[in-house]
Amino acid sequence: MTIEEAENASADGQKKSKKQLKKEAKEALKVAKKEEKKAPEVDAGDQAEDYSSGKYGSLGTIRSSSTVKFEREFVDIKTLNASFVDQKVWIRGRVHTSRAKGKQCFLILRQQGNTIQCVIAVNAEVSKPMVKFVSNVSKESIIDVCATVSRVSSPIESCTTKSLELHVKEFWIVSSAKTHLPLLIEDAARKITQDEEPEGLQIKVNQDTRLDNRILDLRTPANQAIFRLEGGVCKLFRDILSQKGFVEIHTPKIINAASEGGANVFTVSYFKTSAYLAQSPQFYKQMAIAADFDKVFTVGAVFRAEDSHTHRHLTEFVGLDLEMAFKYHYHEVLDVIGATFTDIFKGLRDLYKDELRIISEQYEFEPFKFLDPPLKLDFPQALAMLREAGVEIGDEDDLSTPDEKLLGRLVKRKYDTDFYILDKFPLAVRPFYTMPDPDNDKASNSYDFFMRGEEIMSGAQRIHDPDLLSERAKHHGVDLEKIKPYVDAFRYGCPPHAGGGIGLERVVMLYLGLDNIRKTSMFPRDPKRLAP
Amino acid sequence: MTIEEAENASADGQKKSKKQLKKEAKEALKVAKKEEKKAPEVDAGDQAEDYSSGKYGSLGTIRSSSTVKFEREFVDIKTLNASFVDQKVWIRGRVHTSRAKGKQCFLILRQQGNTIQCVIAVNAEVSKPMVKFVSNVSKESIIDVCATVSRVSSPIESCTTKSLELHVKEFWIVSSAKTHLPLLIEDAARKITQDEEPEGLQIKVNQDTRLDNRILDLRTPANQAIFRLEGGVCKLFRDILSQKGFVEIHTPKIINAASEGGANVFTVSYFKTSAYLAQSPQFYKQMAIAADFDKVFTVGAVFRAEDSHTHRHLTEFVGLDLEMAFKYHYHEVLDVIGATFTDIFKGLRDLYKDELRIISEQYEFEPFKFLDPPLKLDFPQALAMLREAGVEIGDEDDLSTPDEKLLGRLVKRKYDTDFYILDKFPLAVRPFYTMPDPDNDKASNSYDFFMRGEEIMSGAQRIHDPDLLSERAKHHGVDLEKIKPYVDAFRYGCPPHAGGGIGLERVVMLYLGLDNIRKTSMFPRDPKRLAP
Repeated sequence: MTIEEAENASADGQKKSKKQLKKEAKEALKVAKKEEKKAPEVDAGDQAEDYSSGKYGSLGTIRSSSTVKFEREFVDIKTLNASFVDQKVWIRGRVHTSRAKGKQCFLILRQQGNTIQCVIAVNAEVSKPMVKFVSNVSKESIIDVCATVSRVSSPIESCTTKSLELHVKEFWIVSSAKTHLPLLIEDAARKITQDEEPEGLQIKVNQDTRLDNRILDLRTPANQAIFRLEGGVCKLFRDILSQKGFVEIHTPKIINAASEGGANVFTVSYFKTSAYLAQSPQFYKQMAIAADFDKVFTVGAVFRAEDSHTHRHLTEFVGLDLEMAFKYHYHEVLDVIGATFTDIFKGLRDLYKDELRIISEQYEFEPFKFLDPPLKLDFPQALAMLREAGVEIGDEDDLSTPDEKLLGRLVKRKYDTDFYILDKFPLAVRPFYTMPDPDNDKASNSYDFFMRGEEIMSGAQRIHDPDLLSERAKHHGVDLEKIKPYVDAFRYGCPPHAGGGIGLERVVMLYLGLDNIRKTSMFPRDPKRLAP
Repeated sequence: MTIEEAENASADGQKKSKKQLKKEAKEALKVAKKEEKKAPEVDAGDQAEDYSSGKYGSLGTIRSSSTVKFEREFVDIKTLNASFVDQKVWIRGRVHTSRAKGKQCFLILRQQGNTIQCVIAVNAEVSKPMVKFVSNVSKESIIDVCATVSRVSSPIESCTTKSLELHVKEFWIVSSAKTHLPLLIEDAARKITQDEEPEGLQIKVNQDTRLDNRILDLRTPANQAIFRLEGGVCKLFRDILSQKGFVEIHTPKIINAASEGGANVFTVSYFKTSAYLAQSPQFYKQMAIAADFDKVFTVGAVFRAEDSHTHRHLTEFVGLDLEMAFKYHYHEVLDVIGATFTDIFKGLRDLYKDELRIISEQYEFEPFKFLDPPLKLDFPQALAMLREAGVEIGDEDDLSTPDEKLLGRLVKRKYDTDFYILDKFPLAVRPFYTMPDPDNDKASNSYDFFMRGEEIMSGAQRIHDPDLLSERAKHHGVDLEKIKPYVDAFRYGCPPHAGGGIGLERVVMLYLGLDNIRKTSMFPRDPKRLAP
């Protein structure tokens, strides 16, 4: 049945003769069979007496025919409440689960994270073939139902709408799903305990299956919420910085020199030459400062050709970067970044309550704790805490991942915060463009930010003096010829400035206490994964 | 002189003996000479009688020493008004121009697009060496001045602050610029008439010089405003769509198959294999729709390996992409996108008045005209208008660039709008995933948006039926194996959907009536340009 015919049938059904209805039902069947090969079949034997004909079937592929005008007002499951009782509503959603039981069928309809029970039972308006048709619709198919909203006597615990159900009057397939699904949303959505084993002996969907079938995996309520929250982090980051006078810029991803170190950079073939994918917008945001933009931020893809197979490395991720000129001390910037984080945390806590609740229903996590203003420790203080806990570490050593995690636990115990700033890293472990500390020649004006014991931002005052920059580059063995445009950017007057680069997926992973960064990247990229 | 010494000198200067002052001035000179080799030299002969010592010099490279605490409150040039008259203020800015005249020096101080005149003249507080020092500071150097705000008798036409000037009391170099600049901001900022020739016989800075020295070029008031406005377009795009319930997503730039056609795609070497740079987020935003996100947008880099050397092609640009599920007709989406554009235009007109005025001072343009709701024409209407104007064009031909421009003029004349939507493009000229028009087998459910006669967005209803999609792909000679994950995304139920991809730099270029897309890309990339 075409849309047009479906519409006519639906609008005029009750006025038609039995013969007409029968003919239309047959036609509907024919088209439905042809267009939706995988759609369930109506039992042809029942056709002769199908008094529900014109009330169900397939709409075929919706192609926006201009000769069809549907006059249906749709409602969302989440907006349904007691005021809708006894009203007829149109709803488009997915068949989440379906269970036929004698002459009736119970079906859970899902819209994103929201679910409601639908009931269809044989009666004076609903024929046996119609119930059978509904029962046979495959899970994950998209359907339009027209139904009466009814109160239920005992709450339906398996749905988000617990006190209402829908009594189906019309049922149309919009897009049917294959009968065999590589994973079930129910299984993928099952509660994961801290050791990542689902409760009891139920089916566990492993990560590769999830990622191979990401389209289905993303339909779980937790995933719907995770990526809405991730969008929220970006929005908060930008809104907070815009409010503070930052300008959004865009920096090129294709660059002519592997300027930040050649080891972990991807090579691009660029017409008759070679180019590289930027490992960060670092140089460009600094150039924007030299070009008088004063305070800038940029949100975009950054690339790292690291052959790392850890829970927290991706080869492509989203960088939230900012850079800011200051007057006399880089702490002017550090304080702005620190406050930006506390404001993001407050925003998530206050504006994303629903998402946090939904995520926690699948992945249990401790609410994220932070101080306002944030805790700021100097590197030597961290060393002292680690040494007191028995760690052997030199004054100029970088922190290993286990050290960072231990430090996170020590800080949490002592200060009751999951977020802190570690300032004054040893000069030796930082990039060449980091400003050395003028008061301590082993230290630098650089900092990392941590969430739950893992680094989520690295930053520093940058060297804005071309001579000192060249000297430090030489010291690090950087080829000066390759960074010439960068160093030259500071030859025409540049204010002192500092900034940082934040990994979006890490922030979301750690805020939610998740165990793997692939859970917070919609289509993650790692050395072994390039698809989907 | 170090920051510390500078601070002590500045704070205690007046209480010190002449001998002390003399000694400090000499030290200041020594340090200044060493740290700022290119800084102008003070005439050593005048040192003995320099009663202004401790009031000027170089701060050296600001390295955030923790032993220095400056207690200076800085003000911005743009905030200065009559209420500041006779007050002392600190301002950090750039030396825009400087002109010594006997015992005085006139200097224009610049902060982004704002300028104010500074005067320093020999008097009881200001020594001859101090005036000489100030006179010698190179253009574009960054300085801190302490000055008294004064009214002027006749307006200073060359500055944005016309009724006030600054009488300099202290003058400190923060970062000095090379004496020889590859381009002067004055020249780069000069008014361009419609034929892109600067007025009269003045120096014209050509585009490559600008782009080679982008750091300087970006300092012009027009460029400062252009990129603030560009940030504004992004902000409006996101805010308007977020308000409508769209979710922001991030899609991978590294992909495993050159899915949208192999010709203009960049190849990346990816560990032991090859990958490609995404030509658009098309497939991924559609997958997000199949994954129930309902309405999504994404802002990010897109890559086109086109060897095009035109005014409107870049190899890397910023895509503003959106995709949306609809109920029965793709015009539900088309209307949302159309309204998004009119809202962006309103936002620019109302919130970026200052930027628009500043840009128009260098680049004259006609204010952008649009209708609300936007004008929507069908392709055959466009053909009729073109044919009436003498153009020979077939029913299934795509529009050539000259045709588009002519059509833009015809539409402007007839409807008085610089913005319109062209719907129902011939099926033959659109990508394989475009939904064919069910009512006309030569047409498709696709559309382009135009600004001042140039295309800034392309979009369509996409095929959400896997069988029809495979059939159309085969028809276009697309290798089905390469697009398998994409086609498979529609096998588990997908709502009908439509969307579009907008080129950010084109929108800004055309809104402002600029003649080259390199003017609206901060660090443009084309087949010949990979730096800076």
